[in-house]
Amino acid sequence: MGSNPTLSATLLDDIIYRVKYSFFDIHPESAHPAIVEYLLKHNLDHYVSPEKDAYAQLGEERIKKAFGLTRADIYYMPNGTITNVTALSSMLKPFEGVICPASGHINNYETGALEATGRKIISVNASNGKLTPELIDEALSGYKDHNNVTPRTVYLTQVTETGAVYSQNELETIIAYAKDHNLYTYLDGARLAMAISHQNITPEDFGGLDLDMFYIGGTKNGGMYGEALVVKNDEFKRDFASYRKRQGADMGKQRFMSLQFARFFDEDGLWLRLAEHANELGLRLRDGLEKIGVRLMPEATANHAFLILENKYIDKLEKEYGLSRWEKINDKSTKIRLVCGWSTTKADVDGFLEDISMLLKN
Amino acid sequence: MGSNPTLSATLLDDIIYRVKYSFFDIHPESAHPAIVEYLLKHNLDHYVSPEKDAYAQLGEERIKKAFGLTRADIYYMPNGTITNVTALSSMLKPFEGVICPASGHINNYETGALEATGRKIISVNASNGKLTPELIDEALSGYKDHNNVTPRTVYLTQVTETGAVYSQNELETIIAYAKDHNLYTYLDGARLAMAISHQNITPEDFGGLDLDMFYIGGTKNGGMYGEALVVKNDEFKRDFASYRKRQGADMGKQRFMSLQFARFFDEDGLWLRLAEHANELGLRLRDGLEKIGVRLMPEATANHAFLILENKYIDKLEKEYGLSRWEKINDKSTKIRLVCGWSTTKADVDGFLEDISMLLKN
Amino acid sequence: MGSNPTLSATLLDDIIYRVKYSFFDIHPESAHPAIVEYLLKHNLDHYVSPEKDAYAQLGEERIKKAFGLTRADIYYMPNGTITNVTALSSMLKPFEGVICPASGHINNYETGALEATGRKIISVNASNGKLTPELIDEALSGYKDHNNVTPRTVYLTQVTETGAVYSQNELETIIAYAKDHNLYTYLDGARLAMAISHQNITPEDFGGLDLDMFYIGGTKNGGMYGEALVVKNDEFKRDFASYRKRQGADMGKQRFMSLQFARFFDEDGLWLRLAEHANELGLRLRDGLEKIGVRLMPEATANHAFLILENKYIDKLEKEYGLSRWEKINDKSTKIRLVCGWSTTKADVDGFLEDISMLLKN
Amino acid sequence: MGSNPTLSATLLDDIIYRVKYSFFDIHPESAHPAIVEYLLKHNLDHYVSPEKDAYAQLGEERIKKAFGLTRADIYYMPNGTITNVTALSSMLKPFEGVICPASGHINNYETGALEATGRKIISVNASNGKLTPELIDEALSGYKDHNNVTPRTVYLTQVTETGAVYSQNELETIIAYAKDHNLYTYLDGARLAMAISHQNITPEDFGGLDLDMFYIGGTKNGGMYGEALVVKNDEFKRDFASYRKRQGADMGKQRFMSLQFARFFDEDGLWLRLAEHANELGLRLRDGLEKIGVRLMPEATANHAFLILENKYIDKLEKEYGLSRWEKINDKSTKIRLVCGWSTTKADVDGFLEDISMLLKN
Repeated sequence: MGSNPTLSATLLDDIIYRVKYSFFDIHPESAHPAIVEYLLKHNLDHYVSPEKDAYAQLGEERIKKAFGLTRADIYYMPNGTITNVTALSSMLKPFEGVICPASGHINNYETGALEATGRKIISVNASNGKLTPELIDEALSGYKDHNNVTPRTVYLTQVTETGAVYSQNELETIIAYAKDHNLYTYLDGARLAMAISHQNITPEDFGGLDLDMFYIGGTKNGGMYGEALVVKNDEFKRDFASYRKRQGADMGKQRFMSLQFARFFDEDGLWLRLAEHANELGLRLRDGLEKIGVRLMPEATANHAFLILENKYIDKLEKEYGLSRWEKINDKSTKIRLVCGWSTTKADVDGFLEDISMLLKN
Repeated sequence: MGSNPTLSATLLDDIIYRVKYSFFDIHPESAHPAIVEYLLKHNLDHYVSPEKDAYAQLGEERIKKAFGLTRADIYYMPNGTITNVTALSSMLKPFEGVICPASGHINNYETGALEATGRKIISVNASNGKLTPELIDEALSGYKDHNNVTPRTVYLTQVTETGAVYSQNELETIIAYAKDHNLYTYLDGARLAMAISHQNITPEDFGGLDLDMFYIGGTKNGGMYGEALVVKNDEFKRDFASYRKRQGADMGKQRFMSLQFARFFDEDGLWLRLAEHANELGLRLRDGLEKIGVRLMPEATANHAFLILENKYIDKLEKEYGLSRWEKINDKSTKIRLVCGWSTTKADVDGFLEDISMLLKN
Repeated sequence: MGSNPTLSATLLDDIIYRVKYSFFDIHPESAHPAIVEYLLKHNLDHYVSPEKDAYAQLGEERIKKAFGLTRADIYYMPNGTITNVTALSSMLKPFEGVICPASGHINNYETGALEATGRKIISVNASNGKLTPELIDEALSGYKDHNNVTPRTVYLTQVTETGAVYSQNELETIIAYAKDHNLYTYLDGARLAMAISHQNITPEDFGGLDLDMFYIGGTKNGGMYGEALVVKNDEFKRDFASYRKRQGADMGKQRFMSLQFARFFDEDGLWLRLAEHANELGLRLRDGLEKIGVRLMPEATANHAFLILENKYIDKLEKEYGLSRWEKINDKSTKIRLVCGWSTTKADVDGFLEDISMLLKN
Repeated sequence: MGSNPTLSATLLDDIIYRVKYSFFDIHPESAHPAIVEYLLKHNLDHYVSPEKDAYAQLGEERIKKAFGLTRADIYYMPNGTITNVTALSSMLKPFEGVICPASGHINNYETGALEATGRKIISVNASNGKLTPELIDEALSGYKDHNNVTPRTVYLTQVTETGAVYSQNELETIIAYAKDHNLYTYLDGARLAMAISHQNITPEDFGGLDLDMFYIGGTKNGGMYGEALVVKNDEFKRDFASYRKRQGADMGKQRFMSLQFARFFDEDGLWLRLAEHANELGLRLRDGLEKIGVRLMPEATANHAFLILENKYIDKLEKEYGLSRWEKINDKSTKIRLVCGWSTTKADVDGFLEDISMLLKN
């Protein structure tokens, strides 16, 4: 096995294109080198652990230490969609539903994965994608008797799909309201690191919230793949392994997801540091765009920028940058999303600002 | 990010144990170094491809070349269970079922993942886990009208769960029979490399079979994670991406699965060579066990050995070796499974043979 | 079997109460005597028809004659919810969804029965519960690629949940728009008779609409139980019997549903005549309420009246009348629904008007 | 509404054929006149009961009295398949399965309705369709951990699909074994009346069994439609109404099912008397067939006869009699099923015996 074949550069040039930079959410971004090196380093260890992969336990201990958790169970899951659907379906009886902002990821970008488990999403119109006690109450008022789906779980996203961040106080209020109304709470933390960094709190502060389940995003914060689901409520622990396997979310070699989280939460605090970096660049990007006079969506913060541009400008930008067309505004204009990440540099941002500035002047 | 934290050896010693060797199927085995190095090498490339990840296409071209395929579509999937359930549910209308040996993986070891999609498994009793036209005919005879589930797809496994290998001729016969009876065929290739190597055929020979879908196993053959699903039948191509996302099988960073398969099917033929190695060691293991006088299940071949041992011996072996307790034979004895892989060495096998020989003498 | 036991009046008085009249939708209403007599008359016929129940065919012929249909298939279904869920799930692939007004019956009053089949409801905010091409277009704009549920079927209700009636022209426009956009159309006709009567058109006029499926409501128009699903689109005919059985909608003795529809559509036009009666009384009720000065929801027509009343009045009315509390308006007031049916008399309506008039004066 | 239209005899003659008699299970049989008359008699009562239909409660009280139940809840369901699927899915978490004889109705004749709810059937090969503690133990042995479906409920059928009857003692033994192994028990009583009559026990004797749920068959014993599900285990009561509605099993006018059961269990004991009649004729039929020398399946009893005949005879018989082709024996012969019911007469049986006798002589 000595040969060391390489990608065919010619082939790649035929089928893709190099861009100056991509502000896509996650797809073209790679994993942080410290993560991949850690996998490589421990790849050939030869341990056996009949009950629980040792690395799983190592990752679990570091996560629990970082978030100040004592009794939680940690489950490693291959991606965000399957984490949401496995967790939520395990929290709902078949006739129960989840209260969700209409803009929520589970309601729009998961091809009906939750409905595929037979569960209903009870959607409410929430500005910024942020739920409030009033919106939850609105959802509850639709329930009269067995002819209606019973609302049972509240779906929160931190950072939300539209880039907004709940304050700790907002989350505490919602969680307390949910408990008062016999509702569970689940938090989709695909971008949790950015929210924690944005608020200048610690993972331990966040861990103190009385959520029933939440997940710690890895993929969107420099991981190769995998998310860490934290099950805090005891009643959901016993059966979770069965739910995970039944959904097809059980990875054969758990070691590789465990090691990523063991590395994220090692002493150098990699996980939070990567988010701090992404947020800094996000701020630099938004500031720069404002100076140029571009109209930004004010709620989007952390590592996000949402802006409305005329399609003719977007067409030109896309030749050199990756970006997401988010929502049609009218026949001429579109709302787009730009996301900074662990790999974004100041030069990437400044170059983009210069290019868009030039473009809009003409 | 210069620090380079390590696993806590003390912690690991507390929670797991080192064994002499593990003959488990996949769980404690790691990825082949060439695979991990390939990921590391291409980790920081910065391409954008709006339609299809460039690495996905690279892997696809190499797979198609190796298997002699021209029109097939390739989909990378995170693990075997989710590949089976996504593929089969996409091949079946809700009221249709899949004909499966009672011992099949989907019928026993996937926690009802296929039924979770609302599809029924029509099981038949097949010795060695191998279907035949007669057994398929038996399943068909249960269908009379709309009160019965309509049999529509045949589920094959190569190597089967019990270590048997279909000959090319057997597969051709079944596929022809299926086509004559308006049935689709799907092949679970978790251990396909071992079957191809065992028969001394090439991937191209296998690729010539007129299956509707099959998957090329990566995880059990030295991959880190991921399987490559090959969709040959045109009618299943259009919607497959939707089925994959809906099941939660869409990985954010496709690049890392694609690269593994690009490396497996690079010019040095790594994929098949790893299987050859595993099979050689499997043969060495079975030969050695026979010499000692252990009763082997005759159908198990390739990299597998199935044997019946008294529980008192198994208890002792398990202190130093990983193995799978497969099936209770009676109160005293159990059938166990031993699997060799890319990382098994002659010394591992010989050491095990020596230890079991000593054990049985006493 | 000569004895002729009766209900225990004492028991009934203990557990229920007689009201002056009930304006509930269907629950306390009985079946029209002509329907029950027809069942009794043909109860002991002893025919055998291996393929299709003869009465099923008789009902089918009469329905097709009344609605001017030539190629449609008719399926008798036990109730409205199971008709909706069976029909819609048969029209949708697993990853496809149905466009539905947020107020639609399937979205609110069926305990997630459609989601239970794994299908998603794509809801849009429609005033009066009436869809329009603009609203359908809004739903379509949410679809970009395989990450979204694919909109495929449009769910219409005639009369809508809030008592509004689509004009023939509105339906034609929607159906044409749907066809232009590769969408199927399904119409929930629980109260179809009232809509046809209200518009002064014939069943044949309605039958001329190019819907893919619709159902002819029996239960809410004087039937004992059962709805007649009309499958017009050929592509949905082949598999429907399998979908029906799989959902549990296959009744053992089809004869009894068939006979009800054979009677509804016999020469005396019973089905439409019962609706005419219900609508007349509905008009009398709305006119009377307006004279008293009660605030009516203007869109509600046919046999419906929706009105907002203070809770203190509703509490008193409910002691003597059946009615549905529809929607909380504020802490003091509630929107209620009153429905007239085949069994409502002028005296019932006039008595209610007198009572509510007295109540509001005090 | 004075006209009194009739079926078109000409039409009926065109599309069906009169037979001498039909020994089908239920399809061409009608409802017992006392049942239909009871519906007619109470059709125009005008009660309102906001919580529970008064007739539902009347039926419930009579059922509970007959079966000696004190705490059970009764739910009326439209047919047997939907009763099985609603009840079993409410007794199983998504990852749990039901232990079922391979020949069970849910495993063969319900088009995968249970799998449609995402639940798996764990089938075991049971002669006569009768489970035993040994067979249950076999199913349990397949469960090791979260990779397997967890067995949780035992599915019993009384009378079984192949006409066998469990003794009270056999049922008691199985129920006790199930409780010892943390399993629930559910009994499909489509033909329960015949089993009770066959054993010469009372409904009260049967009601004393410690089942978690069972249903009392109406349709196959002279009812028009509807089965009565008895929920004995408290833990399944709270949510059952939601499960029923979600499956589409909630009939708008509950009154008509309630009244059938109120009549079945009125003082004259109609329900059991109809079964006694069916069993008597079944015995007469089996005795007569044996005298002729036909090979009967010995386990089939009560109102059933199963026999193997050459296809050439079956073809001839079918011109004058309804019967069910049950199972292909070989290219020449088929196992058929004959069922007697409340409406079968001695003359029907004797005529059939004479005709088959003549046929076999030639």
